[in-house]
Amino acid sequence: MRSELADILLKDSEINIEKSLPSISIDCVVFGFDTASLKVLLTKVKEKDGWLLPGGYLHKSENLEDGAYRILESRTGVSEIYLQQFKTFGKLNRSNDFFSEYDKNLWHKRRFLSVGYYALTNFAKVEPKIDYLSEACEWKNINELPQLLMDHQEIFDAALLELRKGLNYRPVGLNLLPEKFTMPELQRLYEIILDKPLNRGNFYRKMTKYGILNKLKETRKGGAHKAPNLYTFNAETYNEALENGFKEAW
Amino acid sequence: MRSELADILLKDSEINIEKSLPSISIDCVVFGFDTASLKVLLTKVKEKDGWLLPGGYLHKSENLEDGAYRILESRTGVSEIYLQQFKTFGKLNRSNDFFSEYDKNLWHKRRFLSVGYYALTNFAKVEPKIDYLSEACEWKNINELPQLLMDHQEIFDAALLELRKGLNYRPVGLNLLPEKFTMPELQRLYEIILDKPLNRGNFYRKMTKYGILNKLKETRKGGAHKAPNLYTFNAETYNEALENGFKEAW
Repeated sequence: MRSELADILLKDSEINIEKSLPSISIDCVVFGFDTASLKVLLTKVKEKDGWLLPGGYLHKSENLEDGAYRILESRTGVSEIYLQQFKTFGKLNRSNDFFSEYDKNLWHKRRFLSVGYYALTNFAKVEPKIDYLSEACEWKNINELPQLLMDHQEIFDAALLELRKGLNYRPVGLNLLPEKFTMPELQRLYEIILDKPLNRGNFYRKMTKYGILNKLKETRKGGAHKAPNLYTFNAETYNEALENGFKEAW
Repeated sequence: MRSELADILLKDSEINIEKSLPSISIDCVVFGFDTASLKVLLTKVKEKDGWLLPGGYLHKSENLEDGAYRILESRTGVSEIYLQQFKTFGKLNRSNDFFSEYDKNLWHKRRFLSVGYYALTNFAKVEPKIDYLSEACEWKNINELPQLLMDHQEIFDAALLELRKGLNYRPVGLNLLPEKFTMPELQRLYEIILDKPLNRGNFYRKMTKYGILNKLKETRKGGAHKAPNLYTFNAETYNEALENGFKEAW
């Protein structure tokens, strides 16, 4: 098949055969929150129906983690972001059928194991950019995902599960919320990640007891109700709590 | 260098070039518990000072997880065991200096990313076997580890951390303890994994509240003190608790 994408893939293939490590790819699940909804960053490959997580290949000359940061930035424009490896996906045929209609010697049609990373950001701060492979790069609400190609629904589901498990020992809140936030905004984030409503009083007590929040004298203005207090995370006690998170549960 | 190991590696190299996927290796951190101490299974490669986690390469024809089970069994004799992927290690030069004194074209001297799995078992049930690469395969107490080669200390440390984090959402107790156990034995396991003493009364209350234990009418006989009650895990409520583990913490 001869097309714009076919030409791009052939050129990309030559570069990767030279530069990249065989058998390894990296996919990134970038979560964004804006105090109301949780979104994920998806790309749409040219000439393909359906969406993908932004991904790419590891260079022979770079550490795995450095590759993840480079790929994320080059595919989406997102940089300086919290990135956490969570799982490697290695089923047979998970990736090599994807470009079946293109040149049979394409690099992209080999077998790849994909190392999954999830990233956390405040999506209001990020302006996604499209790259040479993509016709779109957009934030999608996690409750209204479009069709994901290859095994990317499985990768997304695994990332969300990790986010849930990580609430007690990863800097989830710190990276997803704006610097100043209200207790209802923090509660909303936990409710979305845990996928269940939480009791307001219990949430407030538990969060306060952790000692990881600084209550500011400022309030959030503009609403119809009494202006709610603003909080910031106390970086020092927050990091201590993360290190000891699980121990303290006992 | 010409030696027994050099010959083994050359032959192994030819087989792997044919059969294995480039750039990927698998290492297994096998934890064993006997109601008193936590151990890890280590191998000693012939002609090498120091120990390694049992590992190997992924075949082109197999799923990642199937490869992990095959490698574990072929290197150690251990099969039918709970195995959990936890992290992929991909620093530059993590593996390719290891056989520096042997043939420069060896498969083993290429760059590999290693997918780490941890396994849980009751070590009294397992009789480790040595393979063609090893001169020893032994259980070592995690508090008295010998020198580990390559980046295997880092891999071990990461596995232990995962075990700690996993106490609330992985079947850690179920796989490490014998079928029937006492509450002090269960508490000892938690204390070793968490690396801190726990209050006996609190532990008993918390465990009982989880509803995952069946108290048997049998007691453990033979000690100087009053014979302690024996327990089994209730498979059904145990699995429910694992699925909801994190949600219930909120």
